[in-house]
Order: sequence, then structure tokens, then C-alpha cells
Amino acid sequence: MCMTAETEIRVRYVECDPMGVAHHTSYPVWFEMGRTELLRSSGTDYAALERDGVFLAVVSLDVRYLKPARYDDVLTLHTSLASCGRVKVEHHYVLRRGGDTLSTGRTVLACLDANGQLRAVPDMIRGDASEA
Amino acid sequence: MCMTAETEIRVRYVECDPMGVAHHTSYPVWFEMGRTELLRSSGTDYAALERDGVFLAVVSLDVRYLKPARYDDVLTLHTSLASCGRVKVEHHYVLRRGGDTLSTGRTVLACLDANGQLRAVPDMIRGDASEA
Amino acid sequence: MCMTAETEIRVRYVECDPMGVAHHTSYPVWFEMGRTELLRSSGTDYAALERDGVFLAVVSLDVRYLKPARYDDVLTLHTSLASCGRVKVEHHYVLRRGGDTLSTGRTVLACLDANGQLRAVPDMIRGDASEA
Amino acid sequence: MCMTAETEIRVRYVECDPMGVAHHTSYPVWFEMGRTELLRSSGTDYAALERDGVFLAVVSLDVRYLKPARYDDVLTLHTSLASCGRVKVEHHYVLRRGGDTLSTGRTVLACLDANGQLRAVPDMIRGDASEA
Repeated sequence: MCMTAETEIRVRYVECDPMGVAHHTSYPVWFEMGRTELLRSSGTDYAALERDGVFLAVVSLDVRYLKPARYDDVLTLHTSLASCGRVKVEHHYVLRRGGDTLSTGRTVLACLDANGQLRAVPDMIRGDASEA
Repeated sequence: MCMTAETEIRVRYVECDPMGVAHHTSYPVWFEMGRTELLRSSGTDYAALERDGVFLAVVSLDVRYLKPARYDDVLTLHTSLASCGRVKVEHHYVLRRGGDTLSTGRTVLACLDANGQLRAVPDMIRGDASEA
Repeated sequence: MCMTAETEIRVRYVECDPMGVAHHTSYPVWFEMGRTELLRSSGTDYAALERDGVFLAVVSLDVRYLKPARYDDVLTLHTSLASCGRVKVEHHYVLRRGGDTLSTGRTVLACLDANGQLRAVPDMIRGDASEA
Repeated sequence: MCMTAETEIRVRYVECDPMGVAHHTSYPVWFEMGRTELLRSSGTDYAALERDGVFLAVVSLDVRYLKPARYDDVLTLHTSLASCGRVKVEHHYVLRRGGDTLSTGRTVLACLDANGQLRAVPDMIRGDASEA
């Protein structure tokens, strides 16, 4: 299983605000795209997981904003599976524009069934990540 | 049944773009809020409809933008049920800031069941609107 | 100058709604991405235009929704410059998933200066499009 | 100066995702609305600050998600100024639905001038908050 994914992001006009930079709420949207690509690179996809009644709900989000991103910038998002417990998954994010780090982030997701109850993280997500 | 609803909208910072005005995709979001309030004023609510397996899907959207809205502006949206056919509903919208009309719009929604198939519009939505 | 651009869109989770399909306000966001790519393929870019004091403001938007798009779908957006007048530009859009047409759209943009006043559309946008 | 603001939030349909709950990126949008109201209750407004060349940029965001919010829920957001340093401001957030706490959050904003350089936080924002 691949434990890191690189996603190219082109900043959309609608994602920018009157300061002329990407709004801070765009970053967790990009992080979510990174998780989609990380799952895909491990041979599954999140749409299929939901059809099987497995849902990943964000329970914790932390973002640090170091330098602004601007409209039409091409960014690279590095998403990694930091750790995986029985029912929770932790991801880390680094967002770069060329050599500059624009932002770092961290999410914890809880694994839920179709009734919103905690359930074990499927093996295909877990890979060989150490316990969270 | 009430055939018109007035909704107060305060423009959010995130809804504005680098031109310093509300992005054009914010307007149909507000129109959707207007439909929610119009349904509520008729004694039902859309959340309950979906729980009963009735879905309203937008099949047509038209917006005219006359004057820009800005961050923190307080706007008034007038939403009206223009006509109602067997399986489709047409709404009209006028967005004002004081005496100024900023935008007008029109949507057509199709009524679907839980399988995405067309079904008759429930009477509680229909009211006494003429045929579409 | 290239008068048509093809843009690949992967539907984001955040763009989907409780019906499990892409929300209707996501489509005009994608159309805006199509315009960005059409400008780029003509050898300029919109960020540079804004730095030069040229702004393109949407004055009219029409969208028809034919079939739903879903999370993680890969779509192809065809954006074309339909016509270009002295101060306004009209674009047409066709959104496809494989052989299926999911949506068609049309926008009219007005060309503004830094003070929000109408100004002539720059030649680099105009290309050889016929008068609007 | 008022150091806490209460903001009523009605969850929009577009803010909800295929899980049927408010998407996690909606919460920092609501936090931003809370900051707008907190400023207003202190007798100023952020739009006026920006016109005066004072910008508040989010440099850190933390959110904990405890219970989901759903479409059309009416929530109450409590926004408070936790501390204020020379160039940075820290806010805390508690989001409630009735007696239930759905989420807590924290942001740190840096005060910037029109050139994006750090500058002192204006007194009208500072109030009597202790040093950050």
C-alpha cells in the first residue's frame, strides 16, 4: 500500500477572497482531495467504501497557514497516512508551491457504519501504518 | 399557502472574490435558501420531504446580475412559486439591497423519488399555483 | 487563438450534496475553470489581465442539468467562445462524462476596468470571434 | 467592548454532503461569520477595517467535531476573543444546537497592512483582552 500521495492543485478563482489570496477554508477542501488520491493509490476508492457502508468522518482538523496561495497557482499537496488505530485514522498534509511550504495540516477521521456508529477501519485503508 | 417568501441574506466574506464582490455562484446558493423559506412558510419543510422520499432536483437555472453585492451587505431575497406542473416546479427570484435590484433569477426543479425517477409534485408544494 | 478548451474535472466530495450528486452550484464553478483554461490556451491568463486592470464580470448565467454527476467522476468540460462584442463576451459550455452530456451552459461576461466601468474587450480575448 | 458574540446559523443544503450532514469545511466558514459579528458588537466592522488597510489573515485553525449538524438545523455559535497580542488575535468558538455542543474551535489571526506586512492590531479590536 502507498502511504503518501502527491496531488496537483490549481487554485480556482472562486477559492480566492477579497484579499486576493486563497481563502483559508479552501485548504481543508484540498486535504480531502489528497485523502481521495491516497486511497486510490492504495487500490481502493472512497466512493466504493461508502457504497459498502463505510464512512470516514472528520473529527479533528488543524491547519497552519505559512504563506498565501493565489489564483491560478499550481500547488503540490503531499498527503500521508500518519497512523491508524482501530477506529480512527490520522493524516498529515504539506502543501507546497515549488520549494515553498504554504501550509501544513493534520486531520483525524473516525470510521463509521451506515448508522453513524464507530466501526473498525477496513484493512485496505490501514495498510501497515502504526497504531494511532 | 404562502406563494412568496422574503429571506434576509448577509453576504459572507467567503462568498466574495478578488474583485471584492460576491462571487456569481453565491446567488444560486441564496436562491436555494429562498426555496427553503418558501416551503417553510407553506407549513412543510424540505428536510421532512427528503425523509419521505421526495427530492427536488434543479434542472434549469438562469441568473441575471445587475449590480454587485459586497461583503457584509444585508440583502433581501424575494422567492416566489411561479408555476407548478405535474412533475416540475418553477420559482422566480428578485434580490434587492434597499431599493436596488441586484439580481433576478429563475429555476425549474423536477420532483424525484428515492430512485431518481420523476414523480408527482406533492400537493403541499403545489398550493394553488397555475400549471407550468 | 484557440476558441475551444477541454478541461478535465474530477468531482470533489465537498461538491456533492445529501442527494449524493454534485450540487447544481458546482457547475458554474467548473465553467469558470473552463474560461481560465480557454484564456490560457489563447496565450494569456486571467490573473495577468486583472493585474493590468481588466476584469471580466459575469452578467448572465444559464445552466441546463440533464444527468447528475457523482463524487469522484471524471468529467470533460468543453468551453467555447461563442461571440465577442465591444464590451461583452459570450461563452458556451458542454459537460460530458464519457459519451453522456450531463449539462450545457452559457455565460455572458462584461469587461470592466478597475473602477467597475465598462471598457473594450482586449484583443487577446476577442480572437476572431464574431460580434455578440 | 463586547468580548463574546452569539450568532444564529441555519445550516444550508449546499453545506451538507452525501453523508447527509454539514461538511466539515462549513464550520470555519461559520467561525468567520462569528468574528464578523464579534467585531460589529464592538462597534466597528471588518469591511471598514479593510477599507482602512487593515487585514486579518488566518494563520492557524483548529476544529474539533463532536456531533454532526444537519440541513436546516438552527445552531448557535459563541465566538469569543481569547487573547490579543501586538500583531495577532486568538478567538475561541463553541457551536451548539440547543443544549448539545457540536463543535469547538480556535483560530489565530495575524494583522496585516495592505502590503501583507505584519502591523499592530488596532485598539478597537483589542478591547481589554489579555496578551496572547
